[in-house]
Amino acid sequence: MDNFLYHIPTKIHFGRGKVSELPGEVQVYGKRVLLVYGGGSIKKIGLYDSITKLFADAGIEWYELGGVDPNPRVESVREGVRLCREHGIDVVVPAGGGSAIDCAKAVAACASYEGDAWDMVSGKVKVGEVLPVIAVLTVAATGSEMDTSAVISNPETRDKIGFSNAAMRPKVSIMDPEYTYSVSKYQTAAGTADIISHVLEVYFNNNPGAYLQNRFCEAVLKTAVAYGHRAYRDPEDYEARANLMWAGSWAINGLLSKGNPVGWSAHSMEHELSAFYDITHGAGLAVLIPHWLRHMMREENLYNYVEYGVEIWGIDPSLDPHEIAEKAIGATEAYFKEMDLPSTLRELGIDEEYFDEMAEKAGAGLKKAFIPMEKEDVLAIFKAAL
Amino acid sequence: MDNFLYHIPTKIHFGRGKVSELPGEVQVYGKRVLLVYGGGSIKKIGLYDSITKLFADAGIEWYELGGVDPNPRVESVREGVRLCREHGIDVVVPAGGGSAIDCAKAVAACASYEGDAWDMVSGKVKVGEVLPVIAVLTVAATGSEMDTSAVISNPETRDKIGFSNAAMRPKVSIMDPEYTYSVSKYQTAAGTADIISHVLEVYFNNNPGAYLQNRFCEAVLKTAVAYGHRAYRDPEDYEARANLMWAGSWAINGLLSKGNPVGWSAHSMEHELSAFYDITHGAGLAVLIPHWLRHMMREENLYNYVEYGVEIWGIDPSLDPHEIAEKAIGATEAYFKEMDLPSTLRELGIDEEYFDEMAEKAGAGLKKAFIPMEKEDVLAIFKAAL
Repeated sequence: MDNFLYHIPTKIHFGRGKVSELPGEVQVYGKRVLLVYGGGSIKKIGLYDSITKLFADAGIEWYELGGVDPNPRVESVREGVRLCREHGIDVVVPAGGGSAIDCAKAVAACASYEGDAWDMVSGKVKVGEVLPVIAVLTVAATGSEMDTSAVISNPETRDKIGFSNAAMRPKVSIMDPEYTYSVSKYQTAAGTADIISHVLEVYFNNNPGAYLQNRFCEAVLKTAVAYGHRAYRDPEDYEARANLMWAGSWAINGLLSKGNPVGWSAHSMEHELSAFYDITHGAGLAVLIPHWLRHMMREENLYNYVEYGVEIWGIDPSLDPHEIAEKAIGATEAYFKEMDLPSTLRELGIDEEYFDEMAEKAGAGLKKAFIPMEKEDVLAIFKAAL
Repeated sequence: MDNFLYHIPTKIHFGRGKVSELPGEVQVYGKRVLLVYGGGSIKKIGLYDSITKLFADAGIEWYELGGVDPNPRVESVREGVRLCREHGIDVVVPAGGGSAIDCAKAVAACASYEGDAWDMVSGKVKVGEVLPVIAVLTVAATGSEMDTSAVISNPETRDKIGFSNAAMRPKVSIMDPEYTYSVSKYQTAAGTADIISHVLEVYFNNNPGAYLQNRFCEAVLKTAVAYGHRAYRDPEDYEARANLMWAGSWAINGLLSKGNPVGWSAHSMEHELSAFYDITHGAGLAVLIPHWLRHMMREENLYNYVEYGVEIWGIDPSLDPHEIAEKAIGATEAYFKEMDLPSTLRELGIDEEYFDEMAEKAGAGLKKAFIPMEKEDVLAIFKAAL
């Protein structure tokens, strides 16, 4: 187990009706809020009305940044920063999925910087003071509600970049599984694939000494696998939504990767697909993961695949290790397919046109991957996934 | 899954050499420290010298409360409170196992109260302001380094009482597995039993909907089971010490029990044994657990025992459920025995003399137990364990 610093101070109010805690939590930090949300699903489910009534009743003043895109754009961040400055915002409150929360975190970080937000997102400028973020989560997927990162897209440059700072971690997140009842089947499936991918990025590691962490990975994987399908089949199954939601947070809040190096190589590749084609992140991951796993398989790391197959997919441990590994990858593929996720890039409208450019850009994480990779590896995985 | 509030802000510096972080963390809160420790093992392993040198170099002023007993006594808490007042202590720094940390947490809580410390420990007076606690852990067992409780004994009244407050949770804990190399075989075994017991108190629950939590329980159990024996056999096996140490924190910091009601019934019983006979907590638990598990088994909760047997002890799932349950309890018993832990109360020097009195007092937790229990149940378990 490697040395590490663990510090996840986010306070979580979990369960039915917990949005009532929002005003009290906001008032710890101030009384002027920027409410950040996406295409309006929070209006459809009544969450917008709940929040604004709670704010009004508590005398909290709020301004709004709506219409944040699924792959949130730097333009939204710029607009949010402008609103923060204009209104002297104390707290940024995203209500939505990972896109709204990522955008809010980026706004909170960039608000203290005089220059263009993209400078900070792209790492040219260091993150300084960050406004407090209090999130209301409505989609189980990215884990942004409890982690330190934000992923922002710049359509002009075809960049999709994640940046991260401890101060960007939400101070509080409110997680009511009932808000996820209305998440579409497709988005539920994509969210599940995203959660699974976060764990697999950590679970496939070269550090068998981080035994507890690997067992924690299995706990989250088993939960996502079992309840992803349940939530997909029955969108109003509370236990399924609750388990999937809580699993989503632990998949990426940091616990699994502490003491356990992580590559984020599948994410590096998928970010390029999303940047070039604006596809759903989890759908892109569902296509890539089986090919990514297959590409990294070696004789010396076969035990990881065997552990994965036996623990997560219940494959007979007495079979030949190669067979277990192949069955495990096949089970992963089949699992995504049963939720009607795409299994080829073509289904996502992606062809070879930008393969070279995307593979070139997918640098981050590749060197620290389970198997260190180069541009050629990314190309091979893209081609296999076509 | 029940509604819950999750908030575990303790910062953990984990790994070799991490004690170097201590002065910086202390200085966040002040410059006058009360150093709390036990019978001197921190002197034997050089930790006392490391800490005091770090303090001296950083200009941190420190006072000492040494000689804290394994079941820390209220007398030590009183003395600590006196020192805090006399020297205007800013931060309480326990260096040791659960006893030193529990005592330090109690001192930190009671320092702001003018009356007798026992009033607060026994719940007559509410916890108010609490001094910050920064712990340096040297034994994997109680999980006190990341939780909110302190258990204090009063030999005069034969009471052993746990009290708890969110503000008593250490702000920072430093966990270097190498400090646990010198923990004796007996204490390593007892610590492992303690960790396992913390998880079993949560794992045996009536809430199958808290699926993720149950899987997290299995992660910690598997780790404690695997690495408890390894650390027992080879005290300087870093991976074993590291995994056991980190598992000990997660066994009881709150994650497992959030959304999942906990009874703490085995602990309620063991606290009476410790209060009357001053025995090692983990040894008492090792004796009680198999009988406690057997006593609570019912037709309708057999699935919990089956899950436990299959997941933790690798028992063939195709066997009859009753057989799996019995084998699981037998495996637990055998596991403790292989580490030379006692398996009867007599081995701990306990006879029937105080059974009635102890069973009478073991009230806390019994009503919320996996199977609600009465005094008669406790008596039956004590007798079976004799």
